[in-house]
Amino acid sequence: MMKKSYFRPEIDALSGYVPGEQPKMPDLVKINTNENPYPPSAKVMEALKHFDSATLRLYPDPTADGLRKAVAERYGVAMENVIVGNGSDDLLTMIFRAFTSPEQSAAVLDPSYSLYPVLAAMQGASVIRIQLNKTDFSLPEDFLKQAAPANLLVIPRPNAPTGNVIPKAQMEEICRSFDGIVVIDEAYADFADDNCMDFAARLPNVIVMRTFSKSYSMAGVRLGYAVAEASVIDGLMKLKDSYNVDRIAQALGLAAFLDTEHLEHCCARIRESREQLAKDLKSLKFTVIPSQSNFLFAAPPDGNGERCFKILREHAVIVRYFPGPVTGRFLRISIGTPGEIGRLLQILREFYL
Amino acid sequence: MMKKSYFRPEIDALSGYVPGEQPKMPDLVKINTNENPYPPSAKVMEALKHFDSATLRLYPDPTADGLRKAVAERYGVAMENVIVGNGSDDLLTMIFRAFTSPEQSAAVLDPSYSLYPVLAAMQGASVIRIQLNKTDFSLPEDFLKQAAPANLLVIPRPNAPTGNVIPKAQMEEICRSFDGIVVIDEAYADFADDNCMDFAARLPNVIVMRTFSKSYSMAGVRLGYAVAEASVIDGLMKLKDSYNVDRIAQALGLAAFLDTEHLEHCCARIRESREQLAKDLKSLKFTVIPSQSNFLFAAPPDGNGERCFKILREHAVIVRYFPGPVTGRFLRISIGTPGEIGRLLQILREFYL
Repeated sequence: MMKKSYFRPEIDALSGYVPGEQPKMPDLVKINTNENPYPPSAKVMEALKHFDSATLRLYPDPTADGLRKAVAERYGVAMENVIVGNGSDDLLTMIFRAFTSPEQSAAVLDPSYSLYPVLAAMQGASVIRIQLNKTDFSLPEDFLKQAAPANLLVIPRPNAPTGNVIPKAQMEEICRSFDGIVVIDEAYADFADDNCMDFAARLPNVIVMRTFSKSYSMAGVRLGYAVAEASVIDGLMKLKDSYNVDRIAQALGLAAFLDTEHLEHCCARIRESREQLAKDLKSLKFTVIPSQSNFLFAAPPDGNGERCFKILREHAVIVRYFPGPVTGRFLRISIGTPGEIGRLLQILREFYL
Repeated sequence: MMKKSYFRPEIDALSGYVPGEQPKMPDLVKINTNENPYPPSAKVMEALKHFDSATLRLYPDPTADGLRKAVAERYGVAMENVIVGNGSDDLLTMIFRAFTSPEQSAAVLDPSYSLYPVLAAMQGASVIRIQLNKTDFSLPEDFLKQAAPANLLVIPRPNAPTGNVIPKAQMEEICRSFDGIVVIDEAYADFADDNCMDFAARLPNVIVMRTFSKSYSMAGVRLGYAVAEASVIDGLMKLKDSYNVDRIAQALGLAAFLDTEHLEHCCARIRESREQLAKDLKSLKFTVIPSQSNFLFAAPPDGNGERCFKILREHAVIVRYFPGPVTGRFLRISIGTPGEIGRLLQILREFYL
């Protein structure tokens, strides 16, 4: 035991973020961390197979310019508008370090991705939590007024764990009105009807983020990118670890990014399964929030999310449960394979039909 | 252009760290970033070849427990004493975020790894730069007195770019006397005669760091680890990105770590080349600092490091030059293959013999 802590007081006070559990059970149906149920593109497999392991002795390209260039070309921006991260988490860490401090607070949605307030706390920054409307998780009317004191506003679109999207016109109005940086975390945008990537080229205070963890089936690779005005990217680059993305991830990421056909096919399958599952849950009298993501936020008929979570867990089906007066009514269910969804529905039918 | 910066003032003021150049030239001899000239262990190649790419859809183990366990076993500590990072840079970022702030300063050696002061500046922390003795880069007599006001003291052992080591007994005295965290950055320890890993188990304020970038020939993989008292590791874990080390890196890292025979063989070759190069440089009247690392810090007879750097560069041999009144006399030369060293010596003989 240390007699004394040398940590910054903020770190001693911090509980830390708790990621979704990664349990090891036989015949497990793991639909708790929004992983893609399908493998990555065959092009990724091929890139891995042909990767020259002798090159591993050399440092990677510090800025992952191969991938950066491909991203820039697709969205009609310059390479200077793109930064690549070791997963979106790495980018979020840079963003919170760049724009929050004891004097610069962050505004986040509630409920939303629970990592954001943890990242703010690491900076000793205060957090404005803006409660979403309790029935449909839309924004409250005085949203902009509530967010105004913050220097950084983070909006996932689609939101997690709720799965809904804030209408694009409303998003643009927010970005134009907010005096600070707006991060639009588009981790799930490939499953949605539209996205806000075009804002990044038009609005100087907007950062749009994407990840390879969900739609590209590459959560195990750790890769994400952000697009923004060049001076914003410049500042984030200063905070980036020199070689934050490894050689293999850069190669596999580029292969995945260029295979748009696989992406579209995979996302279409998941959207289809999502709509079917929403119907099936509604027929069991579940409340289902309209989702544009690869998961559903659904409440059992008795509004007891915890009980439902435990029932499923006893049958080796792991979903995500977020305690709390609002979220505790719901479960977040990742869209698995038809077989996995079948197992889920079988159990739910037994208990709720 | 943004009308206004929303960055923290510390970030706007920051120049950022500049990593060694990664030039692309034909027939280049790249001995500037201390990469290993030999490929990784055959076990790494094998692990890569047999890696199941279908598993990439799943998040990695958040704490890389396979590797963590192997590290703990080798050094006779518990898993709770080990943290794995996306390269040592990731660990250093966590450490500086944990222990430095505007109220908590860092003490570093000068010259030393130039990333440390940049990481402190990101935190708004002041830096005490302790000048090493100018002839042999040993510690000044009043070292502990100079370091005393700091909360964090970082000592690479062997030091970079100088390559020398502070005697182990002196290291222990420093760790016992310093009221704060001492980081011993052992990036190059596998090339040295001894190391301080045993301090991590005995001294509650010591963090010992290792990397796979140098001795394991895996700079392109991004992997490092730190060993320390459990409460120190606990605090760093709070600052870690949830899934900081990807699945492939975890698999390859474990394969590399377990192949001790390859490691020893590879390091022995490099040490042998180092001693031979030191002799050859001395015969050209270069001043060579005794090195226990995979590089030499050597000054040409005229004490003009910059001129020598430029001569080599014109012949497509890239070494590292650090401007400054002390370091500018020297070049840092990574130990390459015998062929690469031959090219270097051929050019130097032409100009200095």
